[in-house]
Amino acid sequence: MSSYKSTSKMKVFSLNSNVPLATEIVKNIGIEMGKSSIKRFSDGEIQMNIEESIRGCDVYLVQTTAQPGNDYLMELLIMIDAMKRASAKTINCVIPYFGYSRQDRKARSREPITAKLIANLLETAGASRVITVDLHAPQVQGFFNIPVDQLLAIPILSKYFIEKQLEDVVVVAPENNGVVRARKLANILDAPIALIDRNRRSGSNFHDSTDIMGEVAGKRAIIIDDMVDTARTVTTASKVLIEKGAIEVYGCCTHPVLSDPAAKRIQESQIKELVTTNTLHLPESKKIEKITTLSIAPLLAEMIMKVQNNESVSTLF
Amino acid sequence: MSSYKSTSKMKVFSLNSNVPLATEIVKNIGIEMGKSSIKRFSDGEIQMNIEESIRGCDVYLVQTTAQPGNDYLMELLIMIDAMKRASAKTINCVIPYFGYSRQDRKARSREPITAKLIANLLETAGASRVITVDLHAPQVQGFFNIPVDQLLAIPILSKYFIEKQLEDVVVVAPENNGVVRARKLANILDAPIALIDRNRRSGSNFHDSTDIMGEVAGKRAIIIDDMVDTARTVTTASKVLIEKGAIEVYGCCTHPVLSDPAAKRIQESQIKELVTTNTLHLPESKKIEKITTLSIAPLLAEMIMKVQNNESVSTLF
Amino acid sequence: MSSYKSTSKMKVFSLNSNVPLATEIVKNIGIEMGKSSIKRFSDGEIQMNIEESIRGCDVYLVQTTAQPGNDYLMELLIMIDAMKRASAKTINCVIPYFGYSRQDRKARSREPITAKLIANLLETAGASRVITVDLHAPQVQGFFNIPVDQLLAIPILSKYFIEKQLEDVVVVAPENNGVVRARKLANILDAPIALIDRNRRSGSNFHDSTDIMGEVAGKRAIIIDDMVDTARTVTTASKVLIEKGAIEVYGCCTHPVLSDPAAKRIQESQIKELVTTNTLHLPESKKIEKITTLSIAPLLAEMIMKVQNNESVSTLF
Amino acid sequence: MSSYKSTSKMKVFSLNSNVPLATEIVKNIGIEMGKSSIKRFSDGEIQMNIEESIRGCDVYLVQTTAQPGNDYLMELLIMIDAMKRASAKTINCVIPYFGYSRQDRKARSREPITAKLIANLLETAGASRVITVDLHAPQVQGFFNIPVDQLLAIPILSKYFIEKQLEDVVVVAPENNGVVRARKLANILDAPIALIDRNRRSGSNFHDSTDIMGEVAGKRAIIIDDMVDTARTVTTASKVLIEKGAIEVYGCCTHPVLSDPAAKRIQESQIKELVTTNTLHLPESKKIEKITTLSIAPLLAEMIMKVQNNESVSTLF
Amino acid sequence: MSSYKSTSKMKVFSLNSNVPLATEIVKNIGIEMGKSSIKRFSDGEIQMNIEESIRGCDVYLVQTTAQPGNDYLMELLIMIDAMKRASAKTINCVIPYFGYSRQDRKARSREPITAKLIANLLETAGASRVITVDLHAPQVQGFFNIPVDQLLAIPILSKYFIEKQLEDVVVVAPENNGVVRARKLANILDAPIALIDRNRRSGSNFHDSTDIMGEVAGKRAIIIDDMVDTARTVTTASKVLIEKGAIEVYGCCTHPVLSDPAAKRIQESQIKELVTTNTLHLPESKKIEKITTLSIAPLLAEMIMKVQNNESVSTLF
Amino acid sequence: MSSYKSTSKMKVFSLNSNVPLATEIVKNIGIEMGKSSIKRFSDGEIQMNIEESIRGCDVYLVQTTAQPGNDYLMELLIMIDAMKRASAKTINCVIPYFGYSRQDRKARSREPITAKLIANLLETAGASRVITVDLHAPQVQGFFNIPVDQLLAIPILSKYFIEKQLEDVVVVAPENNGVVRARKLANILDAPIALIDRNRRSGSNFHDSTDIMGEVAGKRAIIIDDMVDTARTVTTASKVLIEKGAIEVYGCCTHPVLSDPAAKRIQESQIKELVTTNTLHLPESKKIEKITTLSIAPLLAEMIMKVQNNESVSTLF
Repeated sequence: MSSYKSTSKMKVFSLNSNVPLATEIVKNIGIEMGKSSIKRFSDGEIQMNIEESIRGCDVYLVQTTAQPGNDYLMELLIMIDAMKRASAKTINCVIPYFGYSRQDRKARSREPITAKLIANLLETAGASRVITVDLHAPQVQGFFNIPVDQLLAIPILSKYFIEKQLEDVVVVAPENNGVVRARKLANILDAPIALIDRNRRSGSNFHDSTDIMGEVAGKRAIIIDDMVDTARTVTTASKVLIEKGAIEVYGCCTHPVLSDPAAKRIQESQIKELVTTNTLHLPESKKIEKITTLSIAPLLAEMIMKVQNNESVSTLF
Repeated sequence: MSSYKSTSKMKVFSLNSNVPLATEIVKNIGIEMGKSSIKRFSDGEIQMNIEESIRGCDVYLVQTTAQPGNDYLMELLIMIDAMKRASAKTINCVIPYFGYSRQDRKARSREPITAKLIANLLETAGASRVITVDLHAPQVQGFFNIPVDQLLAIPILSKYFIEKQLEDVVVVAPENNGVVRARKLANILDAPIALIDRNRRSGSNFHDSTDIMGEVAGKRAIIIDDMVDTARTVTTASKVLIEKGAIEVYGCCTHPVLSDPAAKRIQESQIKELVTTNTLHLPESKKIEKITTLSIAPLLAEMIMKVQNNESVSTLF
Repeated sequence: MSSYKSTSKMKVFSLNSNVPLATEIVKNIGIEMGKSSIKRFSDGEIQMNIEESIRGCDVYLVQTTAQPGNDYLMELLIMIDAMKRASAKTINCVIPYFGYSRQDRKARSREPITAKLIANLLETAGASRVITVDLHAPQVQGFFNIPVDQLLAIPILSKYFIEKQLEDVVVVAPENNGVVRARKLANILDAPIALIDRNRRSGSNFHDSTDIMGEVAGKRAIIIDDMVDTARTVTTASKVLIEKGAIEVYGCCTHPVLSDPAAKRIQESQIKELVTTNTLHLPESKKIEKITTLSIAPLLAEMIMKVQNNESVSTLF
Repeated sequence: MSSYKSTSKMKVFSLNSNVPLATEIVKNIGIEMGKSSIKRFSDGEIQMNIEESIRGCDVYLVQTTAQPGNDYLMELLIMIDAMKRASAKTINCVIPYFGYSRQDRKARSREPITAKLIANLLETAGASRVITVDLHAPQVQGFFNIPVDQLLAIPILSKYFIEKQLEDVVVVAPENNGVVRARKLANILDAPIALIDRNRRSGSNFHDSTDIMGEVAGKRAIIIDDMVDTARTVTTASKVLIEKGAIEVYGCCTHPVLSDPAAKRIQESQIKELVTTNTLHLPESKKIEKITTLSIAPLLAEMIMKVQNNESVSTLF
Repeated sequence: MSSYKSTSKMKVFSLNSNVPLATEIVKNIGIEMGKSSIKRFSDGEIQMNIEESIRGCDVYLVQTTAQPGNDYLMELLIMIDAMKRASAKTINCVIPYFGYSRQDRKARSREPITAKLIANLLETAGASRVITVDLHAPQVQGFFNIPVDQLLAIPILSKYFIEKQLEDVVVVAPENNGVVRARKLANILDAPIALIDRNRRSGSNFHDSTDIMGEVAGKRAIIIDDMVDTARTVTTASKVLIEKGAIEVYGCCTHPVLSDPAAKRIQESQIKELVTTNTLHLPESKKIEKITTLSIAPLLAEMIMKVQNNESVSTLF
Repeated sequence: MSSYKSTSKMKVFSLNSNVPLATEIVKNIGIEMGKSSIKRFSDGEIQMNIEESIRGCDVYLVQTTAQPGNDYLMELLIMIDAMKRASAKTINCVIPYFGYSRQDRKARSREPITAKLIANLLETAGASRVITVDLHAPQVQGFFNIPVDQLLAIPILSKYFIEKQLEDVVVVAPENNGVVRARKLANILDAPIALIDRNRRSGSNFHDSTDIMGEVAGKRAIIIDDMVDTARTVTTASKVLIEKGAIEVYGCCTHPVLSDPAAKRIQESQIKELVTTNTLHLPESKKIEKITTLSIAPLLAEMIMKVQNNESVSTLF
C-alpha cells in the first residue's frame, strides 16, 4: 500500500448502509474508522453527529445507496453538508452501488432523469469526488462535473471463474443490452458468447418470446449482468438455457440488489451458483447457500489510498 | 376567487404525503387534480409518471415533508426534475409542513444545517417558488434565493378560540423561545401571557427545573407552539399549569407531527383539547377525540390563485 | 399544423452547417427564415450579424455539428451569446446531429467526456432548450439541465422499408452494442434479428474474429446503426453477411457522417442501398447512387411548432 | 498558541472599520499586520492598494460592518475581489459584528432579506469563510454555503460578572425574543430570569404596555441583549426594573452599536454599568464612564490560529 | 411612444440618487411613479418599503451610482432582493451613471476590478437587465451575462453644438485615450481634432509635460470627455488651448460627477461653457452659470418603452 | 529561477498551436514536456490522450488561439475537461495570444461579445487561471472571475529598439485608439509621439481621409500596435509617414497574426523592419526577411515558475 503521504490528514467515515464493507476498507488501509453517529429523531428525521474534528482533512464517506435508498441518500447529503460546514478539505463519496442509476435517460415522455438529479444533488451538497463500482451505464460519469473514479468488478468476478477451471464455457447476456458486458468477460475467459433475445412486440398478434442466439447445448453457461434485482431475468434465462441443453448455469453480477423475492427465486432456480460482490450488504435472510460473495473492499481501499496519494489508478483495471 | 386569468395553463399535482389536503385544495380552486402516479420499483426506488402534458404550464406540487420525510422529499425532488425536463413554465412547491426546519442552525460543532441543504436541493432540482405555512424560524425564508410565500395559521387558530368565547384566558409559551408566538396570539385574544421556564443547568449540582412565569391560577390556559412532535413539552406544561391552579388547559399548534407516542400522551394528559391544522395528514390511529383539526386548504387555495393571478397576497395575513 | 398561437414572436435562424435542411424546416412551418449572416474575418474568427430585431422572441437556431464540427459549434455558441445579449426570450438549439456524442464516457484513464463538456458550454452560452435527433446514447439527455426534446428516426426509416415490401427480412446489429436498436426496428418490421459479434482479444494468441449470431442465410439483411462514419463497420458486416448466405444487404442509419472514404467504400461494397436522413447535409461528392436520403425536416418542423405552442410532443413518437 | 504550522503563509489585513481590534489581533498572534491601504478617490469611490504579495496565502480580512455600514461592506467586497485576482489561496472574512443581520426574514410583505443578500454578495466576491461573533439569529449561519465559524461572547461577559461577585442576581430579557439568551447567562451565573413583556396591541383600545414577568424586587438585575443600538430598550427596561424594586441594574451586550443618542441615554439612565465588547470600535465621544469594554481580540486571534492550523475550535465555547 | 403593449404590468421605481430624473422619465412614459420608500435605521442601515404589489410585473429601478456611491449601490442591491422575493417578473436596472466603471482593469498588481465585481453583485442580487448611458469603456458591457442596453449621449451633445452654429471648430481629446471619442464628435460636426498629449515619464530627468497635437490657433475648441470629475483635466486643457491661440473653449461630457472643487475650478477657468446631461443630479451648490444641462430623460423613457414592448432599440443611436 | 518549491508536482503540456514556443518554455524551466497527444478522428473530432498521470498536479496548458482558432480553442476546452476529470489540482491556461479578443464589446446592435463568451467557456470547462500576453483591451481581464496574469511585451520590444541606438525617433499610433500604447513606448525611448488620424465620415460628401498629427519629417518612425493582422493599417501608415518626410519606418507589435496577404504586403511596403514576438507561431511561408521575432518564452517560463512558487510577479513588469 502506498505510503509516501501519511494518512494523518485523511479520515474514512461509514454511514449506515454497509458498515461491514466500510469496516473492511479501513482495516485494509490500516486506520481507525472516523467517529460519527447517525440516528433518527422521533419523527424520523436524520440526526448526525461527527464526533471528531475533521478540519482540513480529506474525508471519505462510505455509503451505498441501497434500500432504503432515499434514507441512505439523505444521510449522505446531510453528512456532506455537515463536513463542508466543519471545514473538511475535500469530501470524497465512496458509493459502491450508485442507486437510481437505471433512471439515466427519458425512456418515455415526461420522465425524470433521476440519476442526473442525484449527481446534481451531491455536487450541490458539496461533494468533491465520487468513487464507485460498475455504473449501470458508463455515461453516468458524465452527469458529474467533479471527478468520478469508477472501479470495475470484472477482474474479481473473472478471476473467480478462472480459478474454478470450468470447461466448455459460454458467457450469456441475459438481455439485448448486455452483449458488450458479456463480450468483455468472454474475452477474459476465452469463451464464446450467447444472447437471450427478449422480443416484446407491442401491438402485434405475436406474444412476447425469448430466444437464444449462439450455441449453448452441452456447455457451462455463465450469465452476466451488472446487477440482480428481482432475479426474474436471470432465473428465466437459466430456465431457457437448461431447456436448450446447457449442462450447468452460473450467474454473476456486481451488485446484489436482490429485492424480494429474489433470494427465493434463485434458491429454487436451476442456477447452480450466483457469484456477486459486497457493494451491497446482504442481510442474513438473503445469505442463501447458492450465493457466493467476493469482497470489493481491498480494491476500494487501494483506490482510496491512490486517490489520497495522487497516484495513478489506471493500474487498478 | 380571482378569475381574470383563466386556470387553463395551471395544474396542481398531489404527491403522496397528503392527498386529502391536495384534493381539498383543487376542490377549492375548482379544477381537476393533475394526473400523475408515483409508485415504487421492487427495490424501493421511486417511479414517477406524469400522465398529461404540462408544457408551458405553471405547475403546483403539493407535498408535505412529513414522515417518512426522506421519501417524500425525494418524491418532490424527482417530480421537480421531471417537470423541468417536460418543459413546465414554473414549478411551484406547496410544502405546508417544511420538514427538517428545526435543523436550521449549528447548535453544536460539526452539525449540518439540514434546512438550508434542503433549500439548496429544491433550487438545484429546479423549483421556482415555495409556498409554505409557519416555518419553524422565519429566517428559513432566507435560505432560499427563490420567492417564498409563507402563510400563517394564527388567524385560523385564533378565530377558533374567539368563537369558543372562553373567559379568563392566558396564553402560555411552553418553552423559552416561544414567547414571541404566544404574545402574538395573546394580542389577538386580548389576553396576558405566561412562560414555562425550562432550566437545564449542565455541570451544576441543581437538577433541571421547570418554573412558570406569569399568572395562571384560576385561568384557562392556551399553550401555543408551532408544532407538536412527541407531545412531551405540551403535556408536561399542561401538568405544571394544572398544578399551579389553571382551570383548563388547551393546546394549539400549526403542525401536528405527532410522533409516537404523542397521541397516547395527549389522550392521557390534562389537556382538554389540542387544536391543530391539516398541514400534515393524521392517520386514523392518531385521530383521537381530543384533537380538533382545522383545514388550511381554503387559505392555500386562495394563496395559489393569488400567486397564479399575480395578485397581492398581503391581504391573506 | 398547430395554429392557436401566432408565429409572430418566433423566429428560425439557420447557421452554416445545413442550410438546405433549415430552409426546408421554415418552408414546412410557413414562415420566413430569420435574417442573419455568419462570415469570417481575415484571420478566421467568426463574424456574426443578426439582421433583424429578436427582442422578446422565441428563437430557434438550426445547426448540425457536422464537419468542421469545431467551427459549427463555435458558430452556435457565438450566436447564442448574441441572441442572449439582444434580449431573446428563449433560445432553442435545433441540433439534428449532436457531434462529439460518441465521447460520452471515459473509456480509458484521463479521457475527456466531450459530449458533457459541450452540454455545459451550450448552457453557459445561454441555451434554453435543445431539440435533437437520435443521440448516440440516450443518457446524453441527462448531460443537460435544460429540457432536451429528442426525435427518433426509426419511424421514418421503418416506414421506408415497410413500403418496399421486402420479404424474409432479418435486422442486423453490426456491433455488440447495437442489439437494442436492431430489436426495435425488427419489432416494427416483425422480423428476427442477428448480431455481428466482434471479438477483440487483447493479449491472447487468437486473432480478432467476427462471427454472426442468428440466422441470415437466404434472408434479406438490414443493418442498422445510429450513424455511418467511415463505413468500415457496415461494409465489413455486409461482406460477412453475403458470405454467410444473405441474399441482399441493406444499410440504414440516422446520421450520414460519411467521413472519407465512406462514400467510396459503400459504392464498392455489397450493400445494395444505404437509407439515411438529412440530419447532416451531403455534399454533391457524397451523393452517390446507393444512398437514399429521407427528409427529417417535416418532423423537425412539427416538433418546433409543438414546442412553440406548448403542445405535447409524445404524439411524434 | 498553536505552532505546528508556520504562520509564513498566512496574512492578516485590517480594513478601516476597527483598526484597533485588528491591531490587537495580530499582536496576539505575533505577526505583522498585512500592508495595504484603503483610500477614497475624490468622488468617494474606494481605492484599494495591497502592498505586498499574497500569492498562495491564507488571508484574513478584519472588517466590522459598523456604521457607515455600506462603505465598510463595499471595502470588504472590493478587498475580496482584489485578493482573489491576486491569487490568494483562501480568503477568510473576520466580521466581528455582522451588520444588517437584523434583516434576516420578511417581517412584512415585499421586504428584502438583506442579511441573506449580503451572504450571497460575500460568496460572489470570493470569500472562502466567515468568522464572526454572536449573530443576531443563529440561522444566519445557514445563509452561507461556505463555512461560518461563530464565536460567542457569553463566556467573556459571564466571567466578568462572576468576578464581580454580585449577589441576588436576576438575569433579564428586555424583550420577548430574548428569553433564550437570558436563560443561557442565568445558567452560568446560577440565577433566575425575568422578562420584560412588551405588549403592542394594534387596533385595540388598549395602549402598549410593558410588564415584568418574574421576581426582581430586591435583586440586582442584569439585562442582556445581543446588541445595544439606540439604547431605548435597555434604558426603558432599567427604568421599569427600578420601579419594580430592583436594587441595581446592569446591562450587557456583545455589540455596542450605540447609534445616537445611545451614549447620552445610557449615561442619564438608572443603568449602573453597561458591559460590552470591542466588536465595534467606540469613538472617543461614546466612551462614557458607564461603559466597560471587554476585548474579544484574544478569542478571535485564537480562533484564527486554530482555523489556520486546522485544529478543532469547539474548545473555544 | 409605443403602445401595442399596455403599461399595466410595468412599474418604474425611483431610488434616492436622482429623483428628478426618475420623475421626468415616468412623466415622459405617462405613468405614475411606483410607490416605495427608502429610509435609514438609526444605525444607518437601509430600510426599504415597497408600498404596492409588483407580483408578475416588469419593474424598472432608476438609480445612478453617484456619490455617496456605496450607499446608492447598496440601495439598489437591496431593492433588487426585495423585488425578487416579492415575485417581480423581470428586474431592470436603469443606471444612467455606472459608478466604479473606471476601475475596469488591473492597472497595477493586486488591484481589484471593481466594475466587474459590481456587475457580479447585480446579477447575484437578481437583476435581469441593465440600461445605462455611456460606459467609461464599452468593454464593461461584457462584464455582464445579462443584456445591457447602452444609450449614447453624443447625439444629444452634438445636436446642441450644431444648433449653436459655431464656426472654425476643433474637437479636442483632453487625454491620450480620448481620441476615439473626439473623432466621433468631430465627424458629426465635420471638424478636425486635436489631442492634449500628457507625457508622464517616470524615472527620467524630464518633467511631465503637456503638449498639443493638431491645429488649435484661431479655432473654437470643444473638449470632450465621458465624465468630468475633479475638472482638473478639462481646465488644464482649456488653459493650454487658450495659450496656443484658441479663441474660445467649450467642454462637454455625459456624466457631471463634479467632485469638489470641480464647480469652482470650472467657474474660474477659461472654459466658456460646460455642456453635460442629467445622468447625475447636480445639487444647487454646483448649478453654476457656466454649466448647461441637457436632459437624458426622454431618451431613457423611450428606451424603457422599447424594452418593455420588445421593439428594436437600434433606432435610438 | 525560483527553486524553493520542487517542480515535481507541476507539469507543462503543449497543445497543437505553438509547439516551438511550448518547447522553449519547458527548456527554460528545465523540465520535460508533459506527455499527451491530440489527434483527429476521421470525422474531424478531436481525440485527446493524456499519457501520464497528473493526479494532484498543477498543470500548465500552452495554447495560443491562433488560426484555426476554433479548433485550437476546442482543443484547449477538451484538454481542460480531461484534466479536471483526471484530478488535476489546478489547471493553468497559458494563452500567449488570446483570440477573439477584438470582439470585446457590442459595436453594433445584436453583436455577440465573443471574448466574454470564451472567458465563460474556459471557466465552465474548469480553468483555474489564465496567463496571457498583451490583451487587446485590458478590460478583458475583467471578463474572468479567475485570476488572470498578463505579461506585457513592451519591455522586450523597447529593449530591442534601445539596443539599435536609433536617433530622432518618433513613436506613431497607427489608429486613433492606439495613442496610449504609443505614449508608453515613447516614454521608454524618450521620444515624441505622432498619430495617424483616420477619419471615416459616413453620410457626408467628404471622402475618408488619413492625416498625421505630430511631427514626423526627418525622423525615424516606429509604428506600434498590439497585433498586426492583415497589415493594411501598418503599411498604409508607413506610406503616409514616408510621404510626410519620415526617413525610416519601423513597425512593432506583440502578436503577429499576419493573415494573408500580410507577409506579402509588409515585404512590398516601405517598412524597413517589423519587430514582433512568438506569441503566434509563424509558418515558414511567413518568415520573411523583414520580420524580426523576439522570444517571449523566457518571460513566460519565469511567470509560470513564479505562479507555481507563489512569488510576486510584479517584478516582471
